Amino acid sequence: MELTFKAVDNIPLIQKGDDLADLIFKEADLYDNDIVVIASTIVSKSLGLTFYLSDIVPGKEAKRIARLNQKEPEFVQAVLDESLEVFVETPFMLVRNKNRHICINAGIDGSNVGGGRLLKLPNNPDGCATAIGEKLEKLTGKKISVIITDTNGRAFKEGQTNVAIGLYKIKALRTWIGEKDLFGYVLEISEEAVVDEIAGAANLIMGEGANGYPVVIVRGLDLYTPEKTSIMEFYRKKEDDVIVKGLLEIKKQDNRKKIKK
Amino acid sequence: MELTFKAVDNIPLIQKGDDLADLIFKEADLYDNDIVVIASTIVSKSLGLTFYLSDIVPGKEAKRIARLNQKEPEFVQAVLDESLEVFVETPFMLVRNKNRHICINAGIDGSNVGGGRLLKLPNNPDGCATAIGEKLEKLTGKKISVIITDTNGRAFKEGQTNVAIGLYKIKALRTWIGEKDLFGYVLEISEEAVVDEIAGAANLIMGEGANGYPVVIVRGLDLYTPEKTSIMEFYRKKEDDVIVKGLLEIKKQDNRKKIKK
Repeated sequence: MELTFKAVDNIPLIQKGDDLADLIFKEADLYDNDIVVIASTIVSKSLGLTFYLSDIVPGKEAKRIARLNQKEPEFVQAVLDESLEVFVETPFMLVRNKNRHICINAGIDGSNVGGGRLLKLPNNPDGCATAIGEKLEKLTGKKISVIITDTNGRAFKEGQTNVAIGLYKIKALRTWIGEKDLFGYVLEISEEAVVDEIAGAANLIMGEGANGYPVVIVRGLDLYTPEKTSIMEFYRKKEDDVIVKGLLEIKKQDNRKKIKK
Repeated sequence: MELTFKAVDNIPLIQKGDDLADLIFKEADLYDNDIVVIASTIVSKSLGLTFYLSDIVPGKEAKRIARLNQKEPEFVQAVLDESLEVFVETPFMLVRNKNRHICINAGIDGSNVGGGRLLKLPNNPDGCATAIGEKLEKLTGKKISVIITDTNGRAFKEGQTNVAIGLYKIKALRTWIGEKDLFGYVLEISEEAVVDEIAGAANLIMGEGANGYPVVIVRGLDLYTPEKTSIMEFYRKKEDDVIVKGLLEIKKQDNRKKIKK
């Protein structure tokens, strides 16, 4: 069994209005069951989701957190605007963003944007993946899955990786529940986070610096599904998440300490 | 740029005393800069790290946690024996195991072992990776890196993936600090968790059920280093880890509640 991850060459610097499906179709030779992995940065750029800090008016909450973190209040306000909930306020902001994705600074990024601008994540990454995937399937006549990725930190360990934040025709989890193991015993439960595994390895090729490849084609897996899929299925419920409970408890205690001061 | 992940065929069911480097050398055609990814289960089996629950004598602490989780006290004792610190006691045990790796049940597993036995993780996965890697380099005359993997859950999201727990001649993190981005701005900081990205994607091939491939060869990356490397460099320091702080706070509160009852 063999699996290949291949960079798509010649994707130009993306501008607002660029049609990513068209650009990928022109540069990549696509086959049935191929998975097209796309960095969210180029999706955001094609949607024109850049902004200037000077256009943001910070509120009281943003000013308070900005003081804690020695950040610009405008930046903090932009993060708050993109967030449903803040789990950690300081020394960095860990939030659940508008798409339920838990990440630092709501995924707002200043790398590879240019002109002093910042970049937001798309509003509906599943929808973006679907728009690109449907067009690619139409152009190629092939069965194509799409994964949109973002760079993320991890619990307990240093280092970032890419994770999936939007899906088209691929399920987030591959289920091994009830499968038999090597000795015929039924496996208790096992759900494999296949889309994060694919997103992570695509990052090995994408890179972070100037020589990055924002689109990677993955071939050799049999994960295509004709069904509608969504990244939402793999975000853990808040009430089941002991890590979220712990973070909120620490935040509560920190705020109590501050009030006492 | 292209990256391939290839399963090694014909690795037999591993028994205590089997020489993994010999078996891999016989079945895989290795080139310079190849990365050999090996599931920890076969490393543990080759070292004879199987055990029977009936051989374990549970102590008071194990009995207490076993009652909370409705598990066998012998199993809980085995987990405690393999752990440096317990972060979550219930409804599951999340621990830092003897190798500093944070995981459920200290990585003790009953899948694919057979005969009612359980399997422990190796004591020194870096050392195991080194022993296999040195022998493979000697047998092949090539520059070979090795990653030993274990299956792990993730924060905030359902689903498991493979992560690296032992390394030979590959660094855990690829550093982009100070690199320039597309527009010539210096990237603030970026450390990519390359070994977990590789381990995760290898899992796409390894699988969990009866048709698994425990050894995967990764080709196309330039991550070989002649230096001694260790997985220890990527475990976050406890004092810097807000997630660990939160989990310990919740544990403290739970224990207080239990004492009150």
